[in-house]
Amino acid sequence: MATERQNASTSEALRLHRLYRGKMQTALKCPVRGPADFGFWYTPGVAEPCRAIKAAPDSVYDYTNKGNLVAVVSDGSRVLGLGDIGPEAGLPVMEGKSLLFKYLGGVDAVALCLATKSAEDLVRAVEWLAPSFGGINLEDIAQPKCFRVLEALRDRLPIPIWHDDQQGTATVVLAGLLNALRATGRALGNARIAMIGIGAANVATYRLLTAYGVQPGAIVACDRGGILHPGRGDLDASQSAFPEKWCICRESNADCRTGGIAEALAGADVCLAFSTPGPGIIQPDWIARMAPRGIVFACANPVPEIWPQEAHAAGAAIVATGRGDFPNQVNNSLVFPGMFRGVLDVRSRAITDDMAVAAATALADYGVELGLRPDRILPGMDDPQTAIRVAVAAAMAAQQQGVAQVTRSREEVAAMADRAIRAAQAASAAVAGQATL
Amino acid sequence: MATERQNASTSEALRLHRLYRGKMQTALKCPVRGPADFGFWYTPGVAEPCRAIKAAPDSVYDYTNKGNLVAVVSDGSRVLGLGDIGPEAGLPVMEGKSLLFKYLGGVDAVALCLATKSAEDLVRAVEWLAPSFGGINLEDIAQPKCFRVLEALRDRLPIPIWHDDQQGTATVVLAGLLNALRATGRALGNARIAMIGIGAANVATYRLLTAYGVQPGAIVACDRGGILHPGRGDLDASQSAFPEKWCICRESNADCRTGGIAEALAGADVCLAFSTPGPGIIQPDWIARMAPRGIVFACANPVPEIWPQEAHAAGAAIVATGRGDFPNQVNNSLVFPGMFRGVLDVRSRAITDDMAVAAATALADYGVELGLRPDRILPGMDDPQTAIRVAVAAAMAAQQQGVAQVTRSREEVAAMADRAIRAAQAASAAVAGQATL
Repeated sequence: MATERQNASTSEALRLHRLYRGKMQTALKCPVRGPADFGFWYTPGVAEPCRAIKAAPDSVYDYTNKGNLVAVVSDGSRVLGLGDIGPEAGLPVMEGKSLLFKYLGGVDAVALCLATKSAEDLVRAVEWLAPSFGGINLEDIAQPKCFRVLEALRDRLPIPIWHDDQQGTATVVLAGLLNALRATGRALGNARIAMIGIGAANVATYRLLTAYGVQPGAIVACDRGGILHPGRGDLDASQSAFPEKWCICRESNADCRTGGIAEALAGADVCLAFSTPGPGIIQPDWIARMAPRGIVFACANPVPEIWPQEAHAAGAAIVATGRGDFPNQVNNSLVFPGMFRGVLDVRSRAITDDMAVAAATALADYGVELGLRPDRILPGMDDPQTAIRVAVAAAMAAQQQGVAQVTRSREEVAAMADRAIRAAQAASAAVAGQATL
Repeated sequence: MATERQNASTSEALRLHRLYRGKMQTALKCPVRGPADFGFWYTPGVAEPCRAIKAAPDSVYDYTNKGNLVAVVSDGSRVLGLGDIGPEAGLPVMEGKSLLFKYLGGVDAVALCLATKSAEDLVRAVEWLAPSFGGINLEDIAQPKCFRVLEALRDRLPIPIWHDDQQGTATVVLAGLLNALRATGRALGNARIAMIGIGAANVATYRLLTAYGVQPGAIVACDRGGILHPGRGDLDASQSAFPEKWCICRESNADCRTGGIAEALAGADVCLAFSTPGPGIIQPDWIARMAPRGIVFACANPVPEIWPQEAHAAGAAIVATGRGDFPNQVNNSLVFPGMFRGVLDVRSRAITDDMAVAAATALADYGVELGLRPDRILPGMDDPQTAIRVAVAAAMAAQQQGVAQVTRSREEVAAMADRAIRAAQAASAAVAGQATL
């Protein structure tokens, strides 16, 4: 059944992409009342905002769309679970991301898939692109280079840099986990957590969970080579190329477990899987050996490590995936539109870990407000309040952290976000489907 | 009076830019009928077009917006007549250009002002960006590096590369000149032409005019150092850095004139000025010494080298400027929207000089069709037929030149252009002004 649904969905996706020839276009933000307006929007009038920005560089946020524009940057080196498919083949994902930015957050976004794969080049490219954008969303860049790229850009650029596969995933996982634990009567502090797949998503999740207060020793991390423990001889070599993994290896797994996914899951309360698209990566038997009422996040895309119905049949109380066609979508789309909405509206210079925690907490709290159920641990991404709550949390945290360059009240941010999202959706309804056919 | 008009116009331009916070936004091209559609446009469905493009790279044109998307790339090193104001201050121009691309040509365009100024870096940046775009419009890049950048990119990339300050200007000047000569009963073959300012615009115009058949010897070129002639000692040094200028110096000016602008204009039928924004660069006295019924293109932006009324008072029969608030706007906007519309619709790999000549001829012919007057030598840019005629000419020439990858009839291209422009303007009317306030 899952396979049939999968087939129908993919063939319809292909048909729709071909029908519209992509998903995003540009549109005017300002009106053209008549030909005379070209004299204001272009020559000669346009010289005046140029001069004004030259005189006061910050006014670029007043006279251009920079302050609402995000670049979705990828090298196509790790697209979904499809691997290194290159920049052109990665474009549908980055365009899709841009669609979600606009539709869910009122944030203008442009897909930029770059024809280079070195970390150094990616950093340089984004530095060159930065003047035109209010923020950068890195996407689907292979690890471990994605860590180097994010770090370098966070250090060097005065605009928010976000690698959605790291921070976005970590934020939504923290939110989902908080509510899954609530729904099953547990607390994060006591939970035993197995992480399956130690790539960008789980490394960032590990970092955010421990920043939130989870004891590293309560986490068992498992990569292709099995459970991470200091005795694993193959990990020494990764110290320089992938120090994050080595750090997890040293800090986690207080019980010094060894073995593979089966051993990592034995007795665990929580399974956080971000590995290779399955199904079959995680066997139902292994789920059955988790603690009672286990929580399973099987987030490989497009195919989860285990199908939800199988995980439930094996005893899992709560199952989440990255997909929108199953319950409990633990998808970055719950976070990044609101996160960027919020940081852009207070012109934040950065997105800190504390801001991510604040966003996760707000997202989880909104889920509680709507009423938790095992099949609804988080709000839907199509609920405009989701992005608004995240935006407000991010904007308030940015101001507390001293990285916001504009001061706004909670109510102001909420109203701005509400307006931006309504306008984007109204515009989409008016425009979509007309431009192409 | 001109100054008052100028002041009113610039203050209104500033107000409008601030009111809308820029001019361009993104919008959905496809509909979102409900939350389930995210499963087609994003995960899991989006994996399918990714796989399809990986398997057949050319299908990126079927499944994404690449085929209708142009990057407007600048380093802000020579913006309008304002000089090297940098990438942020250049953004209003590139956004304005993107607005014209969309509104006049139905072409989606993104302003990318880059934080680097070396020719090598600019080439590299555009190479990295190329996978996401169907074409590249270079803009406001200082000379002589702009020549190196354009050449290198034309050689290396399989998509059309256009430096609007070179090819766009040359194309519209050729069109305007053809009709100005017609309107004054002259032929291009007999005209004596003075070029004032030997930057990107006039170098490219020189090249296109001679490609069209004008004798180089009939052109007198004048830069800041005066008329170009082989005896000018200061030009030897430019041979390596700016070989184009040296080439003009050797070929042009059969009469071996010397002196400055006054001497270049004496007896000339045509003045093509693309120099420093004036007014006062060209004195009325010098216009008075041109041949009777002289043709003056005073195209510095935003302030022409001589105000039109002064040039007319000094005896010029036809005066054109780059501005939309005077008659005879010889502005690139008459060409680039239609040029890119045409090349995108036949998926041309390049824009050749012959294609530019074809576009210029079509533009001039359409002007004749509308009826030539001394104050209307070319069609208006707001007439959709302008872009449609240029698109058809470019698309047909691309097919004749063997650079088009898709075959389309004249009627098909015209219909596609018509639909794209109508859709863009309808969308703008529906959307503009809603997203921001």
